[in-house]
Amino acid sequence: MTERIVRVLDSFGDDRTVQTSTDIARRTGLPSSTAHRIVGDLVAAGLLERDEQGRVRLGMRLWELALRGSRALRLRQAALPHMERVQAQIREHTQLAVLEHEEALFLERLSHPEAGANITRIAGRLPLNASSSGLVLLAHADPEIRERILHGHLEAVSPETVTDAETLRALLASIRRRGHVIAPGSIEAVSTGVAVPVRDHGQVIAALSVVLPRAAATTPAVNALTSAAGAIEQDLRSAP
Amino acid sequence: MTERIVRVLDSFGDDRTVQTSTDIARRTGLPSSTAHRIVGDLVAAGLLERDEQGRVRLGMRLWELALRGSRALRLRQAALPHMERVQAQIREHTQLAVLEHEEALFLERLSHPEAGANITRIAGRLPLNASSSGLVLLAHADPEIRERILHGHLEAVSPETVTDAETLRALLASIRRRGHVIAPGSIEAVSTGVAVPVRDHGQVIAALSVVLPRAAATTPAVNALTSAAGAIEQDLRSAP
Repeated sequence: MTERIVRVLDSFGDDRTVQTSTDIARRTGLPSSTAHRIVGDLVAAGLLERDEQGRVRLGMRLWELALRGSRALRLRQAALPHMERVQAQIREHTQLAVLEHEEALFLERLSHPEAGANITRIAGRLPLNASSSGLVLLAHADPEIRERILHGHLEAVSPETVTDAETLRALLASIRRRGHVIAPGSIEAVSTGVAVPVRDHGQVIAALSVVLPRAAATTPAVNALTSAAGAIEQDLRSAP
Repeated sequence: MTERIVRVLDSFGDDRTVQTSTDIARRTGLPSSTAHRIVGDLVAAGLLERDEQGRVRLGMRLWELALRGSRALRLRQAALPHMERVQAQIREHTQLAVLEHEEALFLERLSHPEAGANITRIAGRLPLNASSSGLVLLAHADPEIRERILHGHLEAVSPETVTDAETLRALLASIRRRGHVIAPGSIEAVSTGVAVPVRDHGQVIAALSVVLPRAAATTPAVNALTSAAGAIEQDLRSAP
């Protein structure tokens, strides 16, 4: 039952914010009567909201339940003031990501109105071997997860994504040594991702990154990110 | 079943981020075996995560499902850059709230490190008759909801919260006339809330507010909020 509820909730997205029960049945592969019943239950519980045309969207109640007391919110709250400082300096895109089910899940993104291309979305995911945040998270992941990724299929998001296991292994070692990654073109040819790890009590729990136009200097970004990551770590240590 | 899942998720909060199944059974009033089974299902679906001690917390997957494609995220994304501008000017607390089940639900809060008292939390709620955001939302709510609140029990959060129905009715009319509210001491004696409505296609969908120390001038806040609300409305209109 819980798994079916997840399938229904999972059928919503940036490009599908409002759906009919019939849409949901088709997208989830659930029998139409089952989809209708689950949608009805979710509406009754406030997790979905029905509009005037009888279509449904994710409810504010679901948002509230998911955030109140969540690790995502705590981390994002600690990071936001420092992300804003990076953003004020670099004026492109500043992002916070965590490792979630072998992908980089983005918790926050700040963008300048005139910033360049960036496919990252809040609550969106990217492969660990492609995004700069993902590379940092993978470099510091449990060795078991890292080996599983290195031995699995390495997806190419762009022609410059590192998809060779040994090249990736060497890159991850250099990220651990240097404390940051500069990943030109690994997501889009026109941009460079720069990312650093964020630690809580010594453990890497997130990656902080900026997306720059390919031609931009990367040193100011590395410096801004490194100092922001340090400040976030300090705030996490002193938080209750 | 869905209702029980909601009860389990609802048992988490800022002060209860990690719980055992036994804690959850006690707090939800569910039979222990039922609570254990639902927790197990939610862990299997990734909506809860188990730690080394077998306790559970809200999962990143729940956060992801709740945000992707949500109205809360869309609204908050449109508002954030303009909230940051208010925040840079006023340097106290800047908040965004929506009307949800006859309360003000807070979607976002930015705070200055040296800002004064403020009990608002992201994903937290306050009574409509007490918070400045709530007053604005109530002033522009469906007449039916407004009358229900006016005829119900009006909770006093502080000694200065308006709890007399006729005084509140007059205050709401003045909010609609002036386009903002200044609410000194209605939540805490030491602070004043200032709030304005945010519209989407003419309809009030949110309230934007600041919390100031009681002695602070309110005109700069009214001006900053009014101009930010206008900018958010423009961005919502031009958004896809």
